Amino acid sequence: MKIAFDVMGSDYGSRLAVAAALQLVNEFTDTEVILVGNESEINNNLTSLLKHRTISPKITIYGTTQVVRMTDGPLAAIRMDNSSMYQAIKLVKDKIVDAVLTSGSSAAYIGACHLLLGEIKGIKRPAFMSIMPTIIKGQQVVLLDAGANLENNMDELIDFALMGHTYCQLIQNIVKPKIGLLNIGVEANKGTLTTKATYAKLQALTASNGKLNFLNFHGNIEPRNILTGEVNIIVCEGYVGNIAIKAIEGMALVIFSLIKKGYRKNLFSRFLGLLSFGIFKNIKAAFDYKNTGGAQLIGINGIAFKAHGASEKTSFYSALKLCRSAIKQDVTNKISEQLKNYHNNK
Amino acid sequence: MKIAFDVMGSDYGSRLAVAAALQLVNEFTDTEVILVGNESEINNNLTSLLKHRTISPKITIYGTTQVVRMTDGPLAAIRMDNSSMYQAIKLVKDKIVDAVLTSGSSAAYIGACHLLLGEIKGIKRPAFMSIMPTIIKGQQVVLLDAGANLENNMDELIDFALMGHTYCQLIQNIVKPKIGLLNIGVEANKGTLTTKATYAKLQALTASNGKLNFLNFHGNIEPRNILTGEVNIIVCEGYVGNIAIKAIEGMALVIFSLIKKGYRKNLFSRFLGLLSFGIFKNIKAAFDYKNTGGAQLIGINGIAFKAHGASEKTSFYSALKLCRSAIKQDVTNKISEQLKNYHNNK
Repeated sequence: MKIAFDVMGSDYGSRLAVAAALQLVNEFTDTEVILVGNESEINNNLTSLLKHRTISPKITIYGTTQVVRMTDGPLAAIRMDNSSMYQAIKLVKDKIVDAVLTSGSSAAYIGACHLLLGEIKGIKRPAFMSIMPTIIKGQQVVLLDAGANLENNMDELIDFALMGHTYCQLIQNIVKPKIGLLNIGVEANKGTLTTKATYAKLQALTASNGKLNFLNFHGNIEPRNILTGEVNIIVCEGYVGNIAIKAIEGMALVIFSLIKKGYRKNLFSRFLGLLSFGIFKNIKAAFDYKNTGGAQLIGINGIAFKAHGASEKTSFYSALKLCRSAIKQDVTNKISEQLKNYHNNK
Repeated sequence: MKIAFDVMGSDYGSRLAVAAALQLVNEFTDTEVILVGNESEINNNLTSLLKHRTISPKITIYGTTQVVRMTDGPLAAIRMDNSSMYQAIKLVKDKIVDAVLTSGSSAAYIGACHLLLGEIKGIKRPAFMSIMPTIIKGQQVVLLDAGANLENNMDELIDFALMGHTYCQLIQNIVKPKIGLLNIGVEANKGTLTTKATYAKLQALTASNGKLNFLNFHGNIEPRNILTGEVNIIVCEGYVGNIAIKAIEGMALVIFSLIKKGYRKNLFSRFLGLLSFGIFKNIKAAFDYKNTGGAQLIGINGIAFKAHGASEKTSFYSALKLCRSAIKQDVTNKISEQLKNYHNNK
């Protein structure tokens, strides 16, 4: 398994990205990483990180000269065809690697993936699929779109539902994954014209006795219940999904910082905090977005992941692991196959 | 101070609402509550709640015959002019009370407030203003719109900023309250056409040397930083604001339920949990939406609050307290005055 890793253009520099790649190839003997970016910068990072150890043959460098900036728009990577982002995606297109990971500008990334890899047949707009833990042990929830788009129409939201459905069925082995439509209320008449139309369509795809009777629509789901495990898949427009996810992430940080502060009050509470450490550690880790690492850009012909711009080593490492799983699970081909069936039967 | 309290149409029945009203008048001798709704139902509640004690003269009943349901639309309360919701608002219009509280359908409530009370001069769309705690002790954050509208245009968002600004200046005594525009990224070019236009306008209202140089625009704010105290006011469209608030509320519930579970693991951890109780109690209370109670419908001629449909006694009680504060602080008149100045100088 090979991953092309664009190590340039993240908020904290390429060193953390290179360190994460070294950790990955050390832990998984079946995976190679091609570091894409400024050759001398990457070499310097490798030298300082490895000290006197020799570099693993599973790490290679692919030198590029341009860097897409975080604030760049949809055409930036396409215009800079010797940028690390463009070339990393091109390695997927040329079938030299099995997946690509970047932490650079989402807009530029989506633009270049669209041009170089193209969408799966039948999909109009790809989506970021974010996989989060729920309060039910071992159960995750898949949210899409987490921010690849701003606004989406009904057809696009139905595509998201189909992709999420396929992902849960084929990768998470859930026979009838429950789909929820993110909305401000549970009633069918709540929300915008788009959510109302999508509600009706998802209901039709669930209730009909015809060929399309294969979705399992649970109804609207309020943001309060994103993580309660009520549904397996949450469908929403990109702007709203991004807002909801970032609100959740922020709240987790706020609560844990307040708890930490509370335990630091006095000597006794510090002692209590020490003893309670084990209880918090796992909860904090589960909801720390640094550990979840990234979202897959789903709906394009290829496996492409995006890590947070503000990624540290742990997030990059988690994102690389997600890439590895997606390759192993053959996510893109499976979704592509299922969508072909859907569109042929429509 | 007199509050008209529509006790009908909440998820758990009128008994909890009546109990909250009794608690309020017991604790604050300066406040009267008029319970609006089915007379015999309210009487039965009072009898069973008070047992052999006599009813306080500060509680009165205003009998109505119709009930607006939670799923009813914008015209429901207007069409049912003997509904508890309609009549409670009318008591404000007729200057019999100083404020109104309901937990019924938001759409119906906004519709009836619009018709009976009307908007403050210059305001096109009222907004729900939600006041939340931040991680900075004693500092709150004001978010609007929390869901009175779905979509809003630039002018409406500017009105929200102005109302929030006035509220923070005159009620919270902050000289130059910081305004943040809720968005998916901090950069000026992030978001929808509406957020981009609003960003530019807010910047102009902040930076200009002319008469309008009175806002203090901090820039875009990501949902991750809603509660970090970075800004005093968060401006957003109603749909997005509602999603963000409910995501935050949900995350708080999730984390505390997981912590509770963690402490219940064994005897030792139960003991630890008992000792740590004081540390969590305050944090949990601060972020439990049951304690915050409700949001003010701001921008209309009158003090109108909305409590959660799923309110329990504590939430109703908190909402009644919010009504009381808003009356004492003369919120609506102050905002009205300031907006008049703004529009005259424009």
